[in-house]
This record gives sequence, structure tokens and C-alpha cells, in this order.
Amino acid sequence: MPDRPDTRFRRLREKGCRDFSTACQIIDAARICHVGFVHGNFPYVVPMAHARDGNRLLIHGSVASRLIKNLAAGLNCCVTITHFDGLVLARSAFNSSMNYRSVMILGQAHAVLGEEDKARGLGLLTEHLLPGRLVELRPSTRQEIHATTLLALPIETFTVKIGAGPPDDPAKDLGAGIWAGTIPIRLTAGTPQAAPDLDPHIPLPGYLQNDWYR
Amino acid sequence: MPDRPDTRFRRLREKGCRDFSTACQIIDAARICHVGFVHGNFPYVVPMAHARDGNRLLIHGSVASRLIKNLAAGLNCCVTITHFDGLVLARSAFNSSMNYRSVMILGQAHAVLGEEDKARGLGLLTEHLLPGRLVELRPSTRQEIHATTLLALPIETFTVKIGAGPPDDPAKDLGAGIWAGTIPIRLTAGTPQAAPDLDPHIPLPGYLQNDWYR
Repeated sequence: MPDRPDTRFRRLREKGCRDFSTACQIIDAARICHVGFVHGNFPYVVPMAHARDGNRLLIHGSVASRLIKNLAAGLNCCVTITHFDGLVLARSAFNSSMNYRSVMILGQAHAVLGEEDKARGLGLLTEHLLPGRLVELRPSTRQEIHATTLLALPIETFTVKIGAGPPDDPAKDLGAGIWAGTIPIRLTAGTPQAAPDLDPHIPLPGYLQNDWYR
Repeated sequence: MPDRPDTRFRRLREKGCRDFSTACQIIDAARICHVGFVHGNFPYVVPMAHARDGNRLLIHGSVASRLIKNLAAGLNCCVTITHFDGLVLARSAFNSSMNYRSVMILGQAHAVLGEEDKARGLGLLTEHLLPGRLVELRPSTRQEIHATTLLALPIETFTVKIGAGPPDDPAKDLGAGIWAGTIPIRLTAGTPQAAPDLDPHIPLPGYLQNDWYR
């Protein structure tokens, strides 16, 4: 029986919450997560793609991956999703910080085994990365689906931390005579680059002309 | 004595390397990292700011933080830095992927204790977040420096993984008649937002008018 994870807020408590819909917004706005697990006496942290299916977080990987096998076997894990939203430039280094939104989910994942449920979950991963893409693709083959393990982690034990807003300098620093404020930062998509082997008659699809990631 | 971490490449070996200068480029181009550690039987992954000082990675936090205290005491940790560089749109979901650059550093950090070394390291953190800013700030007070723990993690045991380039579809999928290619993605900075308490006569500094993050 695994210990219960410790999700008490200790530092910067005013930035923490446990609101499910806030967590979902942060999860849905991100395309990658960082998955933590323990092997031997060491923690390991690896980036992965993710999607959300209601109250479970979906990740996937090769059936041949040792990590994926261990996660499917119920290894304790931590999935953290972070948006780096900006720099907060205070009048001192000490009060300068970052704006961010972050969710940390702790627990055990399990493999999604039912064929229909698994195909649907893999579709959610594709569609989360690029909405509109899934319907264009040929259906995955049975062999491809069998080569992939889909994992679901319940979004039950989680914490949210959000840093937002302008710098908060003490009154004694306000006359410092230097600029203070925030620099918003976000991910943006550049111009799509056609594959070298793409038939030049195939036009750029509509879902790539939208303003996503902008 | 801690076990040695396991950094063998298992999956997608062709994407892996152990080149120090490549690792440094990835570290230096990022502003946040994800720090993994073990507490009880669970892994935890938290986002932090970082900077590099030669062959050591610097992170910092409050002297009152339990995590920082544990890291300073030599708790095994893993710091992963990831750039999400793009979506790779193959003709099938199975062959679609992401482009990314990632470094995973494993080991034990220690607190930087010498007053001069510590002040210099904290300065590197400030300067890494926004080059040009440090010289404008008032010097940190002794109290501020004492309230902060600076940690250094040797960049010795690490792995690099890089996914780059166009999709690699099997010949049988090339006639699928759908668009394939990559969408480059990067962090960009928006328009600086002045703090509400900023004296309106203070101009935007030159280092905020540069094309950083673009």
C-alpha cells in the first residue's frame, strides 16, 4: 500500500489552491507535462505529451518502454504542468520573481485496456496537440494501437500554484528610480514548415491557419 | 552513500547524447527548470528558476523552505530542462510527435556558503532571467542574502535528448493526401507592462527593447 502523498502548502500559501476547474484550465492550456518517478534512490523527471479526459490525465508511450511499464504497474508518480507566464521585475533582485501557473498531480496511473476506450483516449491526445487534425488522419491500425500503452492518472490529489500580477515592492524601494513591471511571456507558433516529401499540391489545412498559440 | 543514478539511454537512443556544450546551450536558453525529489515514497516535481555557473546549475529558494533545506542537505535530485520546439505532424497519429530539447541532470546539490560566491551566484540568477537588469538594481542587502539559500548542482551526470526535423512517415503513408510538416513553437515576450506604482517619468530600459525571446 503506497503512502499518501504530502500536498500541504508550506511556502507562498496565498498562491496555492485546490480548485479542480482551475487545474483543468492549466492542464488544457498546456501541451507538455513533466512526469516524475522514483527508480532506485533517485527521482527522474521526463517531459511527455498529455491530454485530459474528464477527471483523468492521459499520457502515452511505447509498450516497450520500461518507464511506461512501471507506471502502468502503479508506480507512484507526479505529473507537473507549468506555464511560464512572465517575468516580474521588482526594484530589487530579492522581490523580483516570475508569473506562472502550475499544477502538480500525485498518484498512480493505470493502463487503459479496453480497445474502444484506448482508441478514444489516443485520439484525445492527438486532438489536444492540434485541434482539427484527428479527423484528417487515417485511423490508427490495430498494430499501432497495440504498440502504444495509454495511461490514465486520476486528477484527484493535486495542488495548483499561480503567481500573477505586478511586483510588490516595499515602500522604501519605490523611489529607486528604475523601471518596474512585468513582461508577459507565452508560447507562440511560427510558420508551418511543409515536410520535404509533401506533395506541393496539398494546401495548408484550415486548422493551421487559426490563431492558436497566439 | 547514495546509489548511482541510472542514465542509460533505452528508448529513442538516436535522440540522446551526453555532450556538455549541447547541454549548456539547452540550459542557457531556458528560464525555468523542473526539480524532482523524493519525499516519503513519492516523487515531487516543482518548477524553479535557474542559471548556470560553468559546470554547475544554480537554483535558489527561501532558507525557510523545507525542500531547499533538504536539497542543501544532499537529497538526491533530478533537474530537467525542456524546450517545447514544435509539433511534428506526420500522416498518422502514430508517427506524429514533438520536437524538443531536453536535459536531465541527476545528483546532489549543495549550498553555496561563501558570502562573495553566494552574492555572485544570486547575481547570475538575476542576470540570466533578464540580461542587463542586474546593474540597475540596488545591491541586495545582507538580510536579503541571508534569507535566500543558493544551491549548486554539478552538471556531471546528465543526459540530453533532442527531437528535431520533419516527420518520418513510412512509404505506404506518403500518398495519404494530407498535409505533413512541422509547426515551430517558441516562447515570446509581449509588451512590458509598467507596475501601477511606477513613476511615469521612468523610461523603459534599453534591455527591454531588445529582441530577446523573439
